[in-house]
Amino acid sequence: MVNERSLSQRLAADVMQRCDVLGRCSDEPGRLTRTFCSVAMRDAHRLVTGWMEAAGMSVRIDAAGNLIGNYLPPESNPQRRVLIGSHLDTVADAGRYDGILGVVMGIAVVEALRESNQSLPWAIEVIGFSEEEGVRFRTPFIGSRALAGTLDAGMLTLCDDTGVSISQALDHFGCDPHAMDACSATPGSIVAYLEPHIEQGPLLESLDEPLGVVTAIAGQTRLTVEWAGEGGHAGTAPMNLRNDPLPIAGRWAVAVEEAARSTPGLVATVGRLSVDPNVPNCIPRCVTASLDVRHQEDAVRIAAVDKLLTLADELARGANLAMRIERQHEHSAVAMDPRLVEGLAKSVASCTGDPQRMVSGAGHDAGVVATVAPTAMLFLRSPGGVSHHPAEAVQESDVALGLQVLVHFIHALASEA
Amino acid sequence: MVNERSLSQRLAADVMQRCDVLGRCSDEPGRLTRTFCSVAMRDAHRLVTGWMEAAGMSVRIDAAGNLIGNYLPPESNPQRRVLIGSHLDTVADAGRYDGILGVVMGIAVVEALRESNQSLPWAIEVIGFSEEEGVRFRTPFIGSRALAGTLDAGMLTLCDDTGVSISQALDHFGCDPHAMDACSATPGSIVAYLEPHIEQGPLLESLDEPLGVVTAIAGQTRLTVEWAGEGGHAGTAPMNLRNDPLPIAGRWAVAVEEAARSTPGLVATVGRLSVDPNVPNCIPRCVTASLDVRHQEDAVRIAAVDKLLTLADELARGANLAMRIERQHEHSAVAMDPRLVEGLAKSVASCTGDPQRMVSGAGHDAGVVATVAPTAMLFLRSPGGVSHHPAEAVQESDVALGLQVLVHFIHALASEA
Repeated sequence: MVNERSLSQRLAADVMQRCDVLGRCSDEPGRLTRTFCSVAMRDAHRLVTGWMEAAGMSVRIDAAGNLIGNYLPPESNPQRRVLIGSHLDTVADAGRYDGILGVVMGIAVVEALRESNQSLPWAIEVIGFSEEEGVRFRTPFIGSRALAGTLDAGMLTLCDDTGVSISQALDHFGCDPHAMDACSATPGSIVAYLEPHIEQGPLLESLDEPLGVVTAIAGQTRLTVEWAGEGGHAGTAPMNLRNDPLPIAGRWAVAVEEAARSTPGLVATVGRLSVDPNVPNCIPRCVTASLDVRHQEDAVRIAAVDKLLTLADELARGANLAMRIERQHEHSAVAMDPRLVEGLAKSVASCTGDPQRMVSGAGHDAGVVATVAPTAMLFLRSPGGVSHHPAEAVQESDVALGLQVLVHFIHALASEA
Repeated sequence: MVNERSLSQRLAADVMQRCDVLGRCSDEPGRLTRTFCSVAMRDAHRLVTGWMEAAGMSVRIDAAGNLIGNYLPPESNPQRRVLIGSHLDTVADAGRYDGILGVVMGIAVVEALRESNQSLPWAIEVIGFSEEEGVRFRTPFIGSRALAGTLDAGMLTLCDDTGVSISQALDHFGCDPHAMDACSATPGSIVAYLEPHIEQGPLLESLDEPLGVVTAIAGQTRLTVEWAGEGGHAGTAPMNLRNDPLPIAGRWAVAVEEAARSTPGLVATVGRLSVDPNVPNCIPRCVTASLDVRHQEDAVRIAAVDKLLTLADELARGANLAMRIERQHEHSAVAMDPRLVEGLAKSVASCTGDPQRMVSGAGHDAGVVATVAPTAMLFLRSPGGVSHHPAEAVQESDVALGLQVLVHFIHALASEA
C-alpha cells in the first residue's frame, strides 16, 4: 500500500507537468485555446502520442481525429477494452485541466498497471477525444459522437467561421472523413468507459472532499424569453402610463432563483439579460432573458420550466407586455452505469472514505458514450470551483488519490469479470 | 376672434413648414443631427435669420452662438424685453420639433403682434439657443447658461471628440468667445422668458388636452449601483453555493418601480442593466443598474433615493454581495414663475379650457433661464409621447392654439405692466 501510494504520487507529479506542457499547445499566443483539428491540436497529439508510446501503448488516430492508445496487459483479450479518457480540445482562453486531465490521468493509470505487470482480462485504451467544447463548429461532442456512431454524415458539412467544413478540417488533419463508420465502437466491445474530470464546480471543495462519483449527467433546457413594452423618456412618462418590461424581467429572475432553491437538485440560471435600448434616461422598450435549467430527472426539469414559462406569461399579461419564447436547446438526463458507479464508489471508499455521489450539471463525453457502453465518471475537486478560465486548477494530491482509485477500480472490475 | 383664429391657423401652417425645412439642416445625410457650431447650425441660422428679418426683427448672434431677433413694437422701451424661444440644436437622429418649434413659434408670435401693430411696453425678442442637448461637448445648456451668466471660462476649454474646444468651435463659427460676458442678461431686463415646447411625453395625449402649463422642472438624481458576486458555471454550482447578483438587481428594479408608483409625482427608472459576463450558461458575476429619479420637490426625490440605496445595501448584505454606488448627476427642481404660470394658465383657459398644470420631467433651457428671469413654459401635446426620434410630432391645430395663447398672454402681461 505504501508503494502504491508513492507510485501514484510520482505519477501525479508527471500528470501535473504534462498538463502544464499541453497548456502551451494553443491556437493563440498568450492564452490557451485549442480547437478541433488545429495546429495546436496536432502539437498536443504529438506530445500525447509520445507519452502513450513510452507507456507501452500502440497509438492510432481514428477518422474523427480521436487519439487512442492501446495497452495489452498479459493474458488480455484484445477484442474487449476498458476505455479511459476525456477530450483534448479546449474553450477559448481555457484552463489546463478541463478534459486534458482525464487523458493524461488515463496514461498514468496505464503506467501504473504496466509497472505491476499483472494480467487483466481486457485491453486498456486511453482516448483523447478530438472535440467536446463545440468552439470551432459550434456543435459539441464531435469526437465522442463518432465513437457512439451518432455523428451523421450531414453534420460533416457544418462549416466554421472561415467556411471550412468538418469534413475538410478532418481531411486536412490527415483523417479520412469517409471512414467515419469505422470509429464507432463494436457493440459490447467496451467493457467500461471511465472519465476522470475536474468537477468545474464548488461542491467538493465546500464539502472538503477530494473526489466525487457522478451518478448522472443532468438534462438541460435552454431558452430565451423576450418581453416588449413601449419605451419612452425616463423623465416625461408618468409611472401609470408606462409599459416597462424591466421590472417584469426582474420579478421573473427572482422567481427563477426561488424555484430552483425550493426544488432539491434543480439549478436554474438567468445568465444573460439584454435591455433595449439600455440607456439610463430611457424606459426599456424590450428585455430578453436567458433561462438555463438542469436536473438529473427530466420530469422535474420539464415541470420547472413549464411553471416558469407560465409565470412569464402571467407577468406579461398583467403588465400589458408582448412576450415571445425561443427554445434553444433541450437534452435529457443521462444516468451513469449503476454497477460501475457502485464499484467506483467502493474503490474511493477503500482509498480515502465514502465519496460524494453527485450529478454533473455540465455536459461531458461520458454523456454521449453512456448511450453505447457502461460509463462512469470520477470528479476531482476544483479549487475555487473555477473552470473555463486560466485559473482552473486541481491539487496534485487529489490527482494521486484519483489514480489510486482508478487502478483499484480496474483491478476490482477484473476480479469480477 | 374669428380673425385671430384664422391668423393663428395660417401662422401655424407656416410654423409646420418651417420645422420641416429646418429638419433638413443636418450634420448627417439621411437623418437629423444638428450640433453646436456645425455647418448645419449655420444653415439653420441663415434660414431663421431670414424669417426673423421678414417679420421685422433686427437679428444678432451673441458670443455663445445664440441667434436673437429683436422686435420693437410701437411705444416700447427697448431696454426691457419679453423673450420667447428655445434651442436650435438637436440630439443625434432627432425629430423636427424638440427645441426648434419654440423658436419658430416665437417668430410667428412676433408676426401676429406686428400684424395687429398694437403698442407694447417692451421689446419682444425671439431666441434660438445655440446648444441645449449636450451632444457635441457632452455638456448641455451652453446657450442658456451664457445668457444666465453661468458659463464659466473653464468650461470653454472642454473638447469634442476631435479635440476641438468650445472656444475654438465658437471662434470658427464667427463668434468671439472672449466676449462671453456680454451674453449675460442685464438684471431686470428680461420681463419674462416664455418657452413653448413639445411635451416629449404621453400625459397630454392621454388626457386629450392640446396644451399644458409647466409649474416646475423636476429635480433629478442619476446614479449607478453595482453588485458583485462570484460568477461560475450555470450547471455545476448548486443553488446554495451561489452568489448571483442578478436576482438581487431584479428585486431592486421591482422596488424602484413600486417606490415611484406609490409616491405621487415621482418617476424612477432603471434604464440600463449591464450583466457581466452576460452569457446564458454562466452565473452573473457582476450586475450594474442605473437609477434615474425625478420629482418637483427635492425633499421627496432625495428621500426616495435614500430609501432605494438603503434597500440596495440591505439586499447586498442579505445575499453576501459587494456593492458600489456611483453618483453621476444631481440637480434641484426649478420652479417656474408663479405669476407667469397663473397668467399663462388663464390665457389657455380663455382660448380653450382649463389647462393641465404639469411638471417637466425633462430638462429645458427654461430651467437655466429661470435662475435669472421670470420664466414660464407652454407644453404642446406630443402624439404618441414620442421625442428624440424621427417620429416626433406635433399637431398643427395645437400649434395654432399655442400661438393664440401666447399672443393673448403677451397682451395680458402688457395690460398689467
